[in-house]
Amino acid sequence: METLEILHMNKGAGETSYAMNSSVQNKIISAAKPATKKAIVQILCSSLPEKMGIADLGCSSGPNALRVISEIVDDVYSTSRLLDRPMPELVVYLNDLYTNDFNNIFGSLPSFYRKQKQEKGSGFGSCFISAVPGTFYGRLFPSNSLHFVHSSSSLHWLSQVPGGLEDGCGRALNKGKIYISKSSPECVLDAYSEQFKSDFSVFLASRSQEMVSGGRMVLSLIGRESMDPTTGHSCYQWELLARSLMTMVSEGLVEEEKVDSFDAPYYAPCLEEVKSEIQKEGSFMVDGHEAYEIDWDGGMEMEGDASPLSRGERVARTIRAVVESMFEWHFGCHIMDELFRRYAEIVEEHLSKTRTRYINLVISLIKPS
Amino acid sequence: METLEILHMNKGAGETSYAMNSSVQNKIISAAKPATKKAIVQILCSSLPEKMGIADLGCSSGPNALRVISEIVDDVYSTSRLLDRPMPELVVYLNDLYTNDFNNIFGSLPSFYRKQKQEKGSGFGSCFISAVPGTFYGRLFPSNSLHFVHSSSSLHWLSQVPGGLEDGCGRALNKGKIYISKSSPECVLDAYSEQFKSDFSVFLASRSQEMVSGGRMVLSLIGRESMDPTTGHSCYQWELLARSLMTMVSEGLVEEEKVDSFDAPYYAPCLEEVKSEIQKEGSFMVDGHEAYEIDWDGGMEMEGDASPLSRGERVARTIRAVVESMFEWHFGCHIMDELFRRYAEIVEEHLSKTRTRYINLVISLIKPS
Repeated sequence: METLEILHMNKGAGETSYAMNSSVQNKIISAAKPATKKAIVQILCSSLPEKMGIADLGCSSGPNALRVISEIVDDVYSTSRLLDRPMPELVVYLNDLYTNDFNNIFGSLPSFYRKQKQEKGSGFGSCFISAVPGTFYGRLFPSNSLHFVHSSSSLHWLSQVPGGLEDGCGRALNKGKIYISKSSPECVLDAYSEQFKSDFSVFLASRSQEMVSGGRMVLSLIGRESMDPTTGHSCYQWELLARSLMTMVSEGLVEEEKVDSFDAPYYAPCLEEVKSEIQKEGSFMVDGHEAYEIDWDGGMEMEGDASPLSRGERVARTIRAVVESMFEWHFGCHIMDELFRRYAEIVEEHLSKTRTRYINLVISLIKPS
Repeated sequence: METLEILHMNKGAGETSYAMNSSVQNKIISAAKPATKKAIVQILCSSLPEKMGIADLGCSSGPNALRVISEIVDDVYSTSRLLDRPMPELVVYLNDLYTNDFNNIFGSLPSFYRKQKQEKGSGFGSCFISAVPGTFYGRLFPSNSLHFVHSSSSLHWLSQVPGGLEDGCGRALNKGKIYISKSSPECVLDAYSEQFKSDFSVFLASRSQEMVSGGRMVLSLIGRESMDPTTGHSCYQWELLARSLMTMVSEGLVEEEKVDSFDAPYYAPCLEEVKSEIQKEGSFMVDGHEAYEIDWDGGMEMEGDASPLSRGERVARTIRAVVESMFEWHFGCHIMDELFRRYAEIVEEHLSKTRTRYINLVISLIKPS
């Protein structure tokens, strides 16, 4: 599967849309705020850029897309005031894959610009927002054009399904599963790990060419707590999704071969893997990192909602808004409602027995001068 | 009416879409090709930019959107080879208003990039395409970032309906018309002309800040042949559209007041007006200009079409694909089919008696070093 031309968050503003089901990702953005603020302050303290290039990689659509940029602009504005300097011209790039709903973001831009001017008045300099569609596993921007790069909830997506998930005769090696699982053979684990390393290394090399010396990155992605990818919670959302598919196989609603041949282009690395690749690639220095836990449903209570969804339904909607484009492409759209109905039930049952959380990693990087 | 947040070419690929009804604009793009080629050659001969900023202002969507860029990239590539130089990094900006269908353009980008690599091989350097939504009557890009600016079939759209089209009591001065007409009072002509001058002057001043010294622009827009805007063909498409609306008024399908209060945010200037504003604003020198005629239906014969549309229908579809967003906003979508059915008939009748053409202007500009 070519992730590049298929993967996108669910469009629009309906009940299965990403716009309506991205509060977990929103919490993850919040958690990286201090690291982002620190990076902006350090960039502005150590240089006086006339133009400041800023990129948000994997910006998605809906309310989260402009939230990140809005906060970065606030940080640049307030830091410039503290330092008693004019604000640099901000050149902001929003990036996501070609099928992302950029029209949705652009529809919010007039009110975004109006708000900036109202709040910041004449002290607000120029801010030029553009969209750069394409994969961040490769060059996206001109050389030496970026001062700050942000990416949230995106780098756990691989550029493609790893090679090597079939034997020499084309038989699936990860039968009945759609991601690394306790029952997966060692070669499946290796294939996933190698794909991540290769992709992440291309990511770093590409950004290195695009960023100025002294530029900074804050990368936030789903990871795992231990070196062993089959322990802990990191693969559990896929485990339960595979289980939902297999109940449909057992009732003849989905072909078993379809499940065997599907593998998610996803990898939740541990912090050591990420740090090791950064060191190996050599362009960046790690300035800080943290790992924290977040509940599958974001730990949120639906406020003011007379008929709240169950936790299982909330989790199922969150996952559906993200993975549906890939699942539709492989299994067809006709089974989506039923699949995610079953998934909600299975998740609900799982959560009634175990509190299950994602591990999220935040890594701050500098491109040395 | 705020042109900014309403005007867009009809989306999608259906029979009333801009994508399916933009062959006139396509011919207009072709006519500006020699001027564009000349500008690219001159830029590359007189400087050695490492990065070359290129903007297409009012790019729209559909097949025309990437056609312009594709040809510019070809020109840069072939000129670089002729001069035996490496190709500069191309930083390409596609601009249109916020409601333009950028998703449609982005869907074509993967095959665009593939084609470039296939055709040009390793000699093809980097090309970074981004979208910059917003009005070109104001700043869109960072300072000193553009080497070449192209705009086709866009600058005849004003930033807003001119002020001064009502008397002191709020009564419409251009009753029964939707643009300058023979029966329009002098003050209506003046209001349109002043709005154009003011908008075009802001356009030039904005580009001047964004362009490097020695940078070039090729601007192509609908104009008129004579100083007097009420003679010749320049206002005839609006005249017939107003007539179509008035037939609906006479049958009680549209309120007369609705027609009286609608005025198109459009102006077809004569070459002298354009040149005079360029001189007055002072940032650019005119390097060349031409005016030519193009048939309302592009003079095209539908090839391989078993049931060809009448010329009236073709013209009505061309105009509908462009103006429908504004007409829907003012009159409601329920009258669109009927309005353009009548318009097709009236145009057909008109064309059976008179060959009617647009005048198109092409102006080449340089920002002096």
